[in-house]
Amino acid sequence: MDIDEIRADTPGCAKVAHLNNAGAALPPRPVIEAVAGHFALESTIGAYEAAEQNEAAIGRFYGAVAGLLGAYPDEIAYVENATRAWDMAFYSIPFAEGDRILTTTSEYSSNAIAYQQVAAAKGVKVEVVPDEADGTLSLDALQAELAKGNVRLVSLNHIPTHNGLVNPAAEVGRLCREHGVLYLLDACQSVGHLVVDVNEIGCDMLSATGRKFLRGPRGTGFLYVRRDILRTLVPPFLDLHAADWKAPDGFQMREDAQRFETWERYVAGQIGLGVAADYAADLGMPQIEARVMHLAARLREELAARPGITVLDRCARPSGIVTFTVDGHDPAAIKAAAREHGVNINVTTPLAHGYDPHAHAVAVRASVHYYNTEEELDRLLSVLT
Amino acid sequence: MDIDEIRADTPGCAKVAHLNNAGAALPPRPVIEAVAGHFALESTIGAYEAAEQNEAAIGRFYGAVAGLLGAYPDEIAYVENATRAWDMAFYSIPFAEGDRILTTTSEYSSNAIAYQQVAAAKGVKVEVVPDEADGTLSLDALQAELAKGNVRLVSLNHIPTHNGLVNPAAEVGRLCREHGVLYLLDACQSVGHLVVDVNEIGCDMLSATGRKFLRGPRGTGFLYVRRDILRTLVPPFLDLHAADWKAPDGFQMREDAQRFETWERYVAGQIGLGVAADYAADLGMPQIEARVMHLAARLREELAARPGITVLDRCARPSGIVTFTVDGHDPAAIKAAAREHGVNINVTTPLAHGYDPHAHAVAVRASVHYYNTEEELDRLLSVLT
Repeated sequence: MDIDEIRADTPGCAKVAHLNNAGAALPPRPVIEAVAGHFALESTIGAYEAAEQNEAAIGRFYGAVAGLLGAYPDEIAYVENATRAWDMAFYSIPFAEGDRILTTTSEYSSNAIAYQQVAAAKGVKVEVVPDEADGTLSLDALQAELAKGNVRLVSLNHIPTHNGLVNPAAEVGRLCREHGVLYLLDACQSVGHLVVDVNEIGCDMLSATGRKFLRGPRGTGFLYVRRDILRTLVPPFLDLHAADWKAPDGFQMREDAQRFETWERYVAGQIGLGVAADYAADLGMPQIEARVMHLAARLREELAARPGITVLDRCARPSGIVTFTVDGHDPAAIKAAAREHGVNINVTTPLAHGYDPHAHAVAVRASVHYYNTEEELDRLLSVLT
Repeated sequence: MDIDEIRADTPGCAKVAHLNNAGAALPPRPVIEAVAGHFALESTIGAYEAAEQNEAAIGRFYGAVAGLLGAYPDEIAYVENATRAWDMAFYSIPFAEGDRILTTTSEYSSNAIAYQQVAAAKGVKVEVVPDEADGTLSLDALQAELAKGNVRLVSLNHIPTHNGLVNPAAEVGRLCREHGVLYLLDACQSVGHLVVDVNEIGCDMLSATGRKFLRGPRGTGFLYVRRDILRTLVPPFLDLHAADWKAPDGFQMREDAQRFETWERYVAGQIGLGVAADYAADLGMPQIEARVMHLAARLREELAARPGITVLDRCARPSGIVTFTVDGHDPAAIKAAAREHGVNINVTTPLAHGYDPHAHAVAVRASVHYYNTEEELDRLLSVLT
């Protein structure tokens, strides 16, 4: 990886030391140009006319995202953000009374709210599988719960937003397949960060966003749904793109994952997200993952060596999301001080992780990407000491 | 209205005669600059950091849209497109078995599909109120149906996409209030086109898009929900922005219309949509409406005077959407020929209007906006003869 070249291809690198990639990463020039170029074309010749002209680039999105994940293009839906992508999958599952949903302690509260909404409406039971000492989902506990029966869905995040832990997504997939249970993976923080292969993981549905580690535009996301189960799912919303109207009073849903889409959309964003997926694949996800892990490990090591700093990531092989506290300093004040020095970081919000007994306190979050440098890590460290 | 100045403020006017405003209008310079400017800032300093910097412009959206409609800012939700805005309203209504939904013959098929989905799931009956000879909803027929009881919802479009008719939205509102029935108005084609005042119309919910007559960015829309009914509606999807997580297993929804939103969104689009709403209000909606009506009337008159051309708009006071057929010429071929001459028009698709007995044939659609000129209408006419 030629980091200098990559940074030269990322205009934001000249302005800031961006360690808020778990919030939204800096897009590379091809993504910026694709989005800005299509938007300019829309403004100049009309948005429908621009879409006709750029039809190939719009369609390219499906192959690009599918290629990144080891999926088929007809298993991919473009959705406006990861929340709605996840919603479209989750609310399409035909739950029945007595069904059980298994999730994990690190689950995002937006998903927890959705579980509660369906639990109340349909008499479904939501159960949080105990975690290991390091915060990751316990596979033994999951296996024990699956063995009890009535599990309709296992639903968890690959990487939560508030801690460096990585859940054992592929091992969960093996257990789900053994028990014939649906598996929905929230990969919002892991796509573009780790190698994510839907066949290796064995998930049935996977949702992700464009703006985080994938380096795509804000206001974009996608959903993967495995071919075998696609037609068993009825999306909670349907429009004239997702289904055909059959007069006088019927409709027929599409056979591909675009049944989870709406016709109207942020088209410039779709083109940009496709470019971002191709960009990541071209650089190589194994190389990206290795570089992110290297930088995060280096940062954790330096942080841990400083008195008064506590690194909170307890997982054996943590992600590029580094979380910590500094004795006597409010995380929000640290974020503001870093910003003064041209370093972007963020703070975690415990309310976003309602099930996690370890997430009660606000913490500092520094999330690295492959385009970051060791010098940028040093700039953050210098703010802290 | 200074049309020269307005056109100089619209870069697209120098490139095309844009008569596809019912598809997507050309945005004015302030909208373009707001969207492109925020996107460039996101790319340069990070998307979260850009949102913090432009917080006021993001928040301005609510007041701008509310001001345009005569609503309160807390009655407005930003949604990614009109389809999903309408969905968020429609699917939040607590229908019970035996409830009746009344709609109109000109209803968009996406909405019809949603009616069927709820009808099948909840035992609700969907009924199409007969129309007048000119295609608009018959108020006498509506009154008769309301009098029969069990009507939970009256749901219709203000202006359909495939014909120049304008439904009597305010008269429908009066009948709905008399009968204490919920009223959802699909104003996708009317906001930014006609004076749309939610109090005058008396609707409880109104959905619209940014990209059409409002001249906002593609990939934006909004929902209006009246204060009195807001808290009786439970959105079909909830996230951490729409509701607060209350550990261990509950949530509390927001009290304002943002309960229909998702936290993650196309932020640059939200800023641009607010600018577009302010731009329309500054020009004056009565002036905009008058100019659109004037140009559309002129175009219909010229078309009707030409042998072989049939104008399809039968309404007494039609909208800026002009539809017609030309004997012996395929509408798609006419669209292509016009494009060759730098004129953007579109064709209607009968499948999008499954209830309309008059919409079986494909037609040519030329939709005018206030920035169009009589010379541009003449350019279209010259293509047709």
